[in-house]
Amino acid sequence: MTLIVQKFGGTSVADPERIRAVAEHVAFTKKHGADVVVVVSAMGKSTDNLIKLAHDVSSVHPGRELDMLLTTGERISMSLVAMALANLGIDAVSFTGSQVGIITDTTHTKAKILEVRGDRIREALAQGKVCVVAGFQGVSTDREITTLGRGGSDTTAVALAAALDADSCEIYTDVTGVFSADPRIVPQARKLTHINFDEMLEMAGAGSKVLALRSVEFARNHNVPIQVRSSFTWEPGTWVTSQEPSMEDPVISGVVTDVSEAKVTVRSVPDRPGISASLFEPLAQSNVNVDMIVQNTSSDGTTDISFTVPKADMKVAESIVADVAKQIGATGISHDDAIAKISLVGAGMKSSPGIAAKMFRILADEGVNIVMISTSTIRISVVVSSSDLERAAGALHTAFGLDSGQAYSAPLPERK
Amino acid sequence: MTLIVQKFGGTSVADPERIRAVAEHVAFTKKHGADVVVVVSAMGKSTDNLIKLAHDVSSVHPGRELDMLLTTGERISMSLVAMALANLGIDAVSFTGSQVGIITDTTHTKAKILEVRGDRIREALAQGKVCVVAGFQGVSTDREITTLGRGGSDTTAVALAAALDADSCEIYTDVTGVFSADPRIVPQARKLTHINFDEMLEMAGAGSKVLALRSVEFARNHNVPIQVRSSFTWEPGTWVTSQEPSMEDPVISGVVTDVSEAKVTVRSVPDRPGISASLFEPLAQSNVNVDMIVQNTSSDGTTDISFTVPKADMKVAESIVADVAKQIGATGISHDDAIAKISLVGAGMKSSPGIAAKMFRILADEGVNIVMISTSTIRISVVVSSSDLERAAGALHTAFGLDSGQAYSAPLPERK
Repeated sequence: MTLIVQKFGGTSVADPERIRAVAEHVAFTKKHGADVVVVVSAMGKSTDNLIKLAHDVSSVHPGRELDMLLTTGERISMSLVAMALANLGIDAVSFTGSQVGIITDTTHTKAKILEVRGDRIREALAQGKVCVVAGFQGVSTDREITTLGRGGSDTTAVALAAALDADSCEIYTDVTGVFSADPRIVPQARKLTHINFDEMLEMAGAGSKVLALRSVEFARNHNVPIQVRSSFTWEPGTWVTSQEPSMEDPVISGVVTDVSEAKVTVRSVPDRPGISASLFEPLAQSNVNVDMIVQNTSSDGTTDISFTVPKADMKVAESIVADVAKQIGATGISHDDAIAKISLVGAGMKSSPGIAAKMFRILADEGVNIVMISTSTIRISVVVSSSDLERAAGALHTAFGLDSGQAYSAPLPERK
Repeated sequence: MTLIVQKFGGTSVADPERIRAVAEHVAFTKKHGADVVVVVSAMGKSTDNLIKLAHDVSSVHPGRELDMLLTTGERISMSLVAMALANLGIDAVSFTGSQVGIITDTTHTKAKILEVRGDRIREALAQGKVCVVAGFQGVSTDREITTLGRGGSDTTAVALAAALDADSCEIYTDVTGVFSADPRIVPQARKLTHINFDEMLEMAGAGSKVLALRSVEFARNHNVPIQVRSSFTWEPGTWVTSQEPSMEDPVISGVVTDVSEAKVTVRSVPDRPGISASLFEPLAQSNVNVDMIVQNTSSDGTTDISFTVPKADMKVAESIVADVAKQIGATGISHDDAIAKISLVGAGMKSSPGIAAKMFRILADEGVNIVMISTSTIRISVVVSSSDLERAAGALHTAFGLDSGQAYSAPLPERK
């Protein structure tokens, strides 16, 4: 029998009405002959509210207690969804992460899954029941309640799908799928019917918020086909699978934009071994998430180092960098909040040379100045002024054949 | 070392400010050399809010799912209290009912405690930690999460105090103790410094809301001294212990008033064996909680039966009784919402005859008509018109020496 894992995010279970809609969809799936395991996030803003409570009560938040606090959100959702299913005559049973045997390491607030036992789910499925599982949580090898960190419910869903050998994992959210660009920035963006794991990983890394990076990694490693869908329209969404693009697919799958970062530049850094380490080690120790790093070729024995960090980490980053700059004798620090990162992602890039050159030409034609560049096998990211964001992203979207009704095919790669 | 169990009800942990106040009091107790186990209820109205959510989502509420839903409330409180303690430099650790081994039967929503293991608490206490335990919940012999029903957190506290052989169990609430009467009805009511288990049980049975009846029964059976105190003023409260009143104590400890019930009268019921059973069995089956029952001596082969039920159960009760009355040939049913129950409770009653007679005389002098009477060894309850409530309760309070600065001593009992 077909087994489908259906994961519903916070907006999908935000209020009683939405929970009833979710139950109806699950019931529909079940009645059409599939076994269903449902994974739920906490309702709407409830996790944020719990975090606010914790801050109002104390400035100290031991991980063990924070995890106990936050896991209540998903437990509320799961029992409500199970009740809503019962109300539709569906035999449903809810399970916490601990009850289904999601065994994690002992790192509170960002635990890693070590093993998914799933015995109680298998039993319940064998009895014809729908299982509703609390996302985002597990139980550690020390038998303490843990949480999986950001995007944890997606990870729960994919991990369960892998452990139960499910046919697919449907991730329901408030968008209808993965888009070729953010429609708020590039209005002609269109929904992709398919994208592969590597592309999705690069998109997540480049700032796409649709799927948590960790869950995509997990899905790729265990080859779990994911479908990203909307719990508001219920229309078919975007498949994320291991399938490589065919020759007819566009070389570029999407333009990913990200305005959540700021840029820090350290000027006239003495160019000698160990300088980068002395700059980035203290940042890592303070949990500042450095994204792009660019260091120019040295001239006159000094160099400039620029890097981007989340805007939220800016303050911490600046004070650390100021200290280090003094120690290493750099002449100054500047920072820029008004930047945007634009990334082209496409598995076809591997076999299509010249994508970067074409990208830079398009931006030049638009008069967009490129501030930083970084590349991977299937991604090219540039940092530009945030005032250029929409123009640049739109131009790239059109030029690479991503607009609706368009299709860009690269010239066949040269055989080497 | 002294071990104190401190239980904080919903109003005591209603918001971050109150939670911080609770933590400070616990820290104070700990710093003065006692080991402390804290038991918490859900914050303020949060249990009501969860129940409302359940009703908004579904008209079906499987007990297992409802218990999972409701237990989140206490888990939120316990982790917040543990954080607030950490904030004060107190090493605290929170535990769910399941984690401390509160083993219950499998009756969801009103499970009975079978055993309290408490191993993790003992370990944590031995390490000098304060333990914060979620009230109201346990884990069943089937390893499912259960709740203990109404007053469950008081029961958790008393059960833990018994299992850990605590020196006392302090129940913190929004009143400063047990009063000789409800001060809203009898303004001259005063706080009792001491009351014994039997009296407290009768008071709870007579409608006093200070302590849940079950927790008092548990305390009596395991001889756990309870102190009822206020988490707003922190002043010394009322001790509830096994100590029998001494000769100098007033015969009557308190006047308990209850306006939550209504009276049903079935007229001209044929007076033959089995009639009462045919009336009260279907009420019990429908979970209608019948309190007082009065049947007059038969005349002309028929009798009138009156009983009181919670006003909330009135509708159900009436329709059941109407059916039964038809079957058994009773001539009519009437009901009265405007009643009040007034009870005198006092362990001294056992050795002081004439209390009932004195009570009836006082009420007669006040022109108060008695509608129903019921008695136990240490309690006399009468039902009167609700319009007479304040006058009657006030007169009894004064006449039995309960007003501040007064002391009523009964004549010495005759030796038999």
